[in-house]
Amino acid sequence: MNKKKSEEGLTVKKNENFSEWFTQVTEKSEILDTRLGIKGFVIMRPWGAMTMENMFEHLEKELQKNGHKPTFMPTVIPKENLTKESEHIEGFTPQVFWLKDIGEGQELALRPTSETVYTPMFKLWIRSWRDLPMKLYQRANVFRLDTKATRPLIRAREFIWIECHDAFKSKEDAEKQVQEDIEVTEKIMHQTFGIPFLPMRRPEWDRFAGAEYTIGSDCFMPDGKLIQQPSTHLMGQKFSRAFNAKFENENGKKEFLWTTAYGPAISRILVSVIATHGDDSGLVFPYSITPVQVVIIPIFTTKNKEKILLKADEIFSKLKKLGIKTELDKDSEKRPGEKYHLWELKGVPFRIEFGEKELEKKELTLFIRDTKEKIKIKEEELKSISELGNEFDKRLLDKANKIFQERIDSGKTEKEIKKILDSGKVARINFCSIDKEGLNCAQIVEKKLGAEVRGTMANTHEKPSGNCPFCNRPAKKVVYLGRSY
Amino acid sequence: MNKKKSEEGLTVKKNENFSEWFTQVTEKSEILDTRLGIKGFVIMRPWGAMTMENMFEHLEKELQKNGHKPTFMPTVIPKENLTKESEHIEGFTPQVFWLKDIGEGQELALRPTSETVYTPMFKLWIRSWRDLPMKLYQRANVFRLDTKATRPLIRAREFIWIECHDAFKSKEDAEKQVQEDIEVTEKIMHQTFGIPFLPMRRPEWDRFAGAEYTIGSDCFMPDGKLIQQPSTHLMGQKFSRAFNAKFENENGKKEFLWTTAYGPAISRILVSVIATHGDDSGLVFPYSITPVQVVIIPIFTTKNKEKILLKADEIFSKLKKLGIKTELDKDSEKRPGEKYHLWELKGVPFRIEFGEKELEKKELTLFIRDTKEKIKIKEEELKSISELGNEFDKRLLDKANKIFQERIDSGKTEKEIKKILDSGKVARINFCSIDKEGLNCAQIVEKKLGAEVRGTMANTHEKPSGNCPFCNRPAKKVVYLGRSY
Repeated sequence: MNKKKSEEGLTVKKNENFSEWFTQVTEKSEILDTRLGIKGFVIMRPWGAMTMENMFEHLEKELQKNGHKPTFMPTVIPKENLTKESEHIEGFTPQVFWLKDIGEGQELALRPTSETVYTPMFKLWIRSWRDLPMKLYQRANVFRLDTKATRPLIRAREFIWIECHDAFKSKEDAEKQVQEDIEVTEKIMHQTFGIPFLPMRRPEWDRFAGAEYTIGSDCFMPDGKLIQQPSTHLMGQKFSRAFNAKFENENGKKEFLWTTAYGPAISRILVSVIATHGDDSGLVFPYSITPVQVVIIPIFTTKNKEKILLKADEIFSKLKKLGIKTELDKDSEKRPGEKYHLWELKGVPFRIEFGEKELEKKELTLFIRDTKEKIKIKEEELKSISELGNEFDKRLLDKANKIFQERIDSGKTEKEIKKILDSGKVARINFCSIDKEGLNCAQIVEKKLGAEVRGTMANTHEKPSGNCPFCNRPAKKVVYLGRSY
Repeated sequence: MNKKKSEEGLTVKKNENFSEWFTQVTEKSEILDTRLGIKGFVIMRPWGAMTMENMFEHLEKELQKNGHKPTFMPTVIPKENLTKESEHIEGFTPQVFWLKDIGEGQELALRPTSETVYTPMFKLWIRSWRDLPMKLYQRANVFRLDTKATRPLIRAREFIWIECHDAFKSKEDAEKQVQEDIEVTEKIMHQTFGIPFLPMRRPEWDRFAGAEYTIGSDCFMPDGKLIQQPSTHLMGQKFSRAFNAKFENENGKKEFLWTTAYGPAISRILVSVIATHGDDSGLVFPYSITPVQVVIIPIFTTKNKEKILLKADEIFSKLKKLGIKTELDKDSEKRPGEKYHLWELKGVPFRIEFGEKELEKKELTLFIRDTKEKIKIKEEELKSISELGNEFDKRLLDKANKIFQERIDSGKTEKEIKKILDSGKVARINFCSIDKEGLNCAQIVEKKLGAEVRGTMANTHEKPSGNCPFCNRPAKKVVYLGRSY
């Protein structure tokens, strides 16, 4: 490996050292930069930011289709709001960044999440059942003082997310919203971005601070660890009680609002996109979200440069007109091979190469990033690129689904379970309970196996058969154990 | 006026009490809410947030067309960065919010602006002239501890803006960027949003802290006061020197980068949109940025409800298919008159009304928000709505331009100047100098007339004739005096 390549390409394999692979791929592909040196805060460079913008667009479009409207809430929250709901503040206080006193008698925190702002506003904005449902969201940055924040994007102190806060007239309506949130995760994160997940109803001891229950989405990292993606929370009437947020129901009586919250963190979902689809050459970005769908690399000498570049411009215009995100790499300082490496590293789905030979034959070489195939196409076939793009995404999804399925295994005894976990899988097991009475066994799981009870399947009732392997009581639930970030 | 109306409609006229009009219109049209009670921080409700999203889209599209790429920078900035450029920190220190110490030995501020983050990154990202220009931006919230922050959006402690930070290989290139920034303001804020402005080269004592020079955009408020809109700054080599950010030039020599910054604050431009176009019935939103371009209000009784609503759905689908942002107000609790008031208050450009009578005649009534005309149109004429929308925006622009022109008047003597200012206008006058030597006269202007020297026209050389009316020295410049927010 020459010096140039070791500097610009990846020097580790994804399956051999995932952690180092992730660091290298995010830095070398120019997704992010950590050199500003603020613990837990990263800089998203254009390649990362453009991808995130595309991800936001998919998600916001879907949320708006479902009746959500945008808002902008203040970045700071007064202490009196943050401390209104007792469980909430207990859960979040240690994680809050506070502003220095400015001598105006109001203590302000950087928002860790915004329930304590939306709920008092619901109180002012909603009079009766006629105003319901009210479905709001914001695209925002939130802040949590994670003391272990040492992995960029994976464990962060600032993340860029969408938070949806919805109010309803009944528990039934609120629970329907929780289902809708899971469906949005399924449609966007799984079907569009290609990231499979386990929708997990969290155990009682692991629900959101202030929620009745929480459904989290657990995704696999290549090293077998789990990463939590969007979660949705049935707040029930907990926050509305704390803020005395009532509405007049259809019978003319005052009642507390029913609320939900849903929080897809784009900067974190990007982690799963990178980790799930990337390979030893770098990123592999789904066609649906990549900043560049096709890169054109013309191969020329000083002699035929003019002719070749003219053709390149023509192809570029053609693709642009088709609405395809296209980049033309004309740089004459770099050799074609260097350019190939660079754009492969950046995960661009398709590369069009052509030189004198192709020009004569009136054909183009199309390189496909995931399979690394090179095929010959005619210029008039360029219009089928978006179809190839859909197939590209379908392949990424199928591959991810296959690996996902292989990573779940059932175990009965502690020994079996340990073996499953040690092989980088999630263990599906019988378990006493996910109510408070199960906490003792969950602590045993953590201590003995270094794993967590992630929860029960949210929408499938799985019937346990047998006893809990830890307390030997009859199992009430089938739960999933995993090791996590 | 009945109780209902006084509660929901405006109770003051724009020209009689602009300040109260602005408060009422922003609250009653559901643009914003201040009741969370954090000084300088507001909540943007969906009507305001959706408008801002549309404004962002126009601006970002233009910036991207000109080669800018998005980034996400941390919301916090380490003290060591913020204090690197001496003028910058002197100018901004009193305005900075600091985070409480978290015991990790790093003092962090909420970003007031991000030169001190972009410049050290330019240093890492740019090696040679081949990497230039580098044009980056972010859509972000920034924070300034404005002690006078008592007017929502107008004087705020948090605002939502775009900041562009660009690096170049020469002063010439950087100055071209400043021109491009002014052109973007002209194209987007003036031509698209309908807000005329004076591009003012700020006096030496009023440039951005750390800039070589600043071009600000001054817009009129209806009460004659000026509000500063996007400004663009030639940083020159000030920040690159402070951060030792160099590049290798075409001769192989290391040189400091030339940088610029441009900061259009969407939440503040929204103020000008509201203030410029609104009238005594409420907001008047340009067709180009309104969340709803056409509202359909069917007029029905219990008897013909089904038939009328069927037609309403049909019209709704037709307009949607044409790509027009349409809302159908089917609410049967409210009388049509109430709905008219509401949607006029919200500034929707076109309203389609129809009932039994119109249905029989196969025509629709089209109400036009700015002129308050009602015209009859045939259903097949709906496709001309977007054309009417362009005309709508043209009328707003023409009207704003006319008022703008009338608000500038030339004056020679102190008495004349005072008269101009007192009548709510900007005074165009001969002035000694906008370099440091002019500061004394500027202070006289402030003390005696309560006005500010806003600067000289950025792109027109205006030749003074005569002496400075304050020091009687020969005038070097023609400057504009105004009172401001």
